[in-house]
Amino acid sequence: MTSWHPKNVGILALDIYFPPTCVLQEALEVHDGVSKGKYTVGLGQDCMAFCSEVEDVISMSLTVVTSLLEKYKIDPTQIGRLEVGSETVIDKSKSIKTFLMQIFEFGFPVSYAPYTNSHKEQKYGNTDIEGVDSTNACYGGTAALFNCVNWVESASWDGRYGLVVCTDSAVYAEGPARPTGGAAAVAMLIGPDAPIAFESKLRGSHMSHAYDFYKPNLASEYPVVDGKLSQTCYLMALDSCYKYFCQKFEKLEGRQFSMLDVDYFVFHSPYNKLVQKSFARLFFNDFLRNASSVDEIAKEKLAPYSTLSDVESYQSRDLEKASQQVAKQLYDLKVQPSTLIPKQVGNMYTASLYAAFASLLHEKHSSLEGKRVIMFSYGSGLTATMFSLQLQEGHRPFSLSNIVKVMDVPGKLKLRHEFPPEKFVDIMKLMEHRYGAKDFVTSKDSSLLSPGTCYLTEVDSMFRRFYAKKENTSNAATCENGAS
Amino acid sequence: MTSWHPKNVGILALDIYFPPTCVLQEALEVHDGVSKGKYTVGLGQDCMAFCSEVEDVISMSLTVVTSLLEKYKIDPTQIGRLEVGSETVIDKSKSIKTFLMQIFEFGFPVSYAPYTNSHKEQKYGNTDIEGVDSTNACYGGTAALFNCVNWVESASWDGRYGLVVCTDSAVYAEGPARPTGGAAAVAMLIGPDAPIAFESKLRGSHMSHAYDFYKPNLASEYPVVDGKLSQTCYLMALDSCYKYFCQKFEKLEGRQFSMLDVDYFVFHSPYNKLVQKSFARLFFNDFLRNASSVDEIAKEKLAPYSTLSDVESYQSRDLEKASQQVAKQLYDLKVQPSTLIPKQVGNMYTASLYAAFASLLHEKHSSLEGKRVIMFSYGSGLTATMFSLQLQEGHRPFSLSNIVKVMDVPGKLKLRHEFPPEKFVDIMKLMEHRYGAKDFVTSKDSSLLSPGTCYLTEVDSMFRRFYAKKENTSNAATCENGAS
Repeated sequence: MTSWHPKNVGILALDIYFPPTCVLQEALEVHDGVSKGKYTVGLGQDCMAFCSEVEDVISMSLTVVTSLLEKYKIDPTQIGRLEVGSETVIDKSKSIKTFLMQIFEFGFPVSYAPYTNSHKEQKYGNTDIEGVDSTNACYGGTAALFNCVNWVESASWDGRYGLVVCTDSAVYAEGPARPTGGAAAVAMLIGPDAPIAFESKLRGSHMSHAYDFYKPNLASEYPVVDGKLSQTCYLMALDSCYKYFCQKFEKLEGRQFSMLDVDYFVFHSPYNKLVQKSFARLFFNDFLRNASSVDEIAKEKLAPYSTLSDVESYQSRDLEKASQQVAKQLYDLKVQPSTLIPKQVGNMYTASLYAAFASLLHEKHSSLEGKRVIMFSYGSGLTATMFSLQLQEGHRPFSLSNIVKVMDVPGKLKLRHEFPPEKFVDIMKLMEHRYGAKDFVTSKDSSLLSPGTCYLTEVDSMFRRFYAKKENTSNAATCENGAS
Repeated sequence: MTSWHPKNVGILALDIYFPPTCVLQEALEVHDGVSKGKYTVGLGQDCMAFCSEVEDVISMSLTVVTSLLEKYKIDPTQIGRLEVGSETVIDKSKSIKTFLMQIFEFGFPVSYAPYTNSHKEQKYGNTDIEGVDSTNACYGGTAALFNCVNWVESASWDGRYGLVVCTDSAVYAEGPARPTGGAAAVAMLIGPDAPIAFESKLRGSHMSHAYDFYKPNLASEYPVVDGKLSQTCYLMALDSCYKYFCQKFEKLEGRQFSMLDVDYFVFHSPYNKLVQKSFARLFFNDFLRNASSVDEIAKEKLAPYSTLSDVESYQSRDLEKASQQVAKQLYDLKVQPSTLIPKQVGNMYTASLYAAFASLLHEKHSSLEGKRVIMFSYGSGLTATMFSLQLQEGHRPFSLSNIVKVMDVPGKLKLRHEFPPEKFVDIMKLMEHRYGAKDFVTSKDSSLLSPGTCYLTEVDSMFRRFYAKKENTSNAATCENGAS
């Protein structure tokens, strides 16, 4: 074995950011005049974060990257690869990654000036950082993560850390899809000897051509969504990934795989109800495979559905109900711990799966040693992968307990400000107007933001974007406002 | 060493496609009323390809992938990873890769129907293919290529081939940038024991935040370009990458690096004049480094410029002239062989660097055994990497001579149809109107296209895109028109 071959490559550290601005789903139900429980029970969602006019996917990614570097005391020169997953397009050519390069070259914030090499001091001067943005709906973050892990395992690895950023703002036109929005950014530090290590051979992907959710209307931030098709595509991709995953497990281990081989399941979460359906679907798969996870009582309950065709089985409400019922106990054990942030923040697109994973770490960190977690990543269009992680406590600063401390999920949830639905709708209208626009300044109002948060101040007449950072009381000297 | 550790990972096979529709730069000069030689000498360009209304980046990628698979007799089930680099956005969420999945699941063409699992026969059924689209201006293809190579070298490699596609259509608003357009797609098959192998440790990247060329105007296909800044950014990134590259070489080899250690240089080619300037700039770098590539006569000629600041040196016309003059002999030897296709087809964005490399293979294939080629990839915004390839003849079908035969560059150039500038301008106007539009059918006129070429037939009221394939006389049975 050559010296560059690293072991247990995976996630060393993680941080999450979501905007403090949010709206309660219960209040939205009243405002929208829909039946009580339509969003809270029907979708399974509690609350929804959104970007106000001073935040966007670039500011959130600046915030979460600077936060991760500071909190884990990582020098910007130690990063050798940086990749971003996002489906929120602000520029069709210039990647979000290039905005983040400011951190590694000059330290953020810097005031932008046309690119010459004399106008600013190179605080870190680290420009030798591979990687760009990965794109396919909610899957781009997973692609970026795989790319970063592969880089560490490749012959071109130079011994430095990789850094993966998932950042998205999910907004929908007024109507039934609007309550399935959300916004967040997640940053993950990648390297060997990780507390969250990849089981690289246990992986199944399903990629296909579909029009379930897409963004062909280039001038609008809103997607075109076929809700029913979207759910069917998600469940079919889940089935297919699970099939490949089971095959690979059985080839490697020489025995049948069942859900009982997994401690926790983490799903991409457009809304919690789909996560419930997904787990029930995996349970039904295990039933059809005659796996050991399905007991006699469950077998009896599911027997009437064993002769359904695939298409019928996706459409059967009775099957859905029955399988959710018999899978309930396992759901509470293996899935429920990963649902906290997605239920509170909403759909975070590329960040959704990793926010769900962050919830699991938060809820169970003291008992995760030696556990196997299966992740299901889905992006419409469509691309999906099921993959496996092995957890260990690890050593500070790269330990599960330190990750939980750094993330401080309860602190972040507590600092949120609930907006009345009317105000939320007003902000959405302003944001529609601002999407793709130039030549405006924002309110620069950072009063709701925590210290250390980056925010948008201006878009000039050439569409150039300017960001500032709210003064971090512990580190005030470096945080002057970089914008004009 | 474990069994999965492959050697000499790189490019096994390559194919290129560019539209047959083109316009002569000389004719454009007359039409635009500019001074004679402005485009042909000033830019150094001969001809420019463009997509007519039946072609786009998706059709070109379908064409080049089906062509590569057929010509190298690769079964679609042998592909385990597929990645696309592009900066031509047709959909902001759904990746180009998902369109290509039709080839691997059903065989192309298929008629699209809403995604259910009963409506079509799965000819190949290969949906377990990782990878999505990579985005940053002209650099996305290089990112995709690195990702694919890393995958083969990673623990998650499953033994199958990777496939990288670069596809772009470069169009500009009327004005001085318009003659710097072009269009093409390149496909590359990735695996171990390749005739075109990566020297993974010889690599230098420069990534930074710049607004030299970007696409913030989401409703328009045209970029915002600062031509002068763009050229300075390119040359600064080149300097920085070269600096890192030399450092890495010198650390590995324990001796000074010079241009003489390289047999051929291949540059990203927005227009040929910039390639000439770039090579001269590297020569000037070698002069400043006191490298062995610079003889006494050249030293004397460049001496007056040795005290210029970096910024001054980018702006000095005299330096540019002097360094081009003293580098001329080496340029003709080491750069000129890679300029054929870029001069004939124009800027192909992500495909540009690989079309230049294809030109080198075409021009020199019989004498490339044991040669080292340095590639410089640049994407505005900005991301850049200089990397090194080692060539061997290899074994059929993955041999340099077979690649040259499959590409058939002279045949493709000969089949082109020169359009008068007036007709070209009319087509550009139609394409402006069509960009981001829905609910139209194209002429479906494939008379100018070669057999086997895929083309756009319709965009329906839901923005869904339909493509067909021109009957391939050698393979007529599988090529019925898949669109309505």
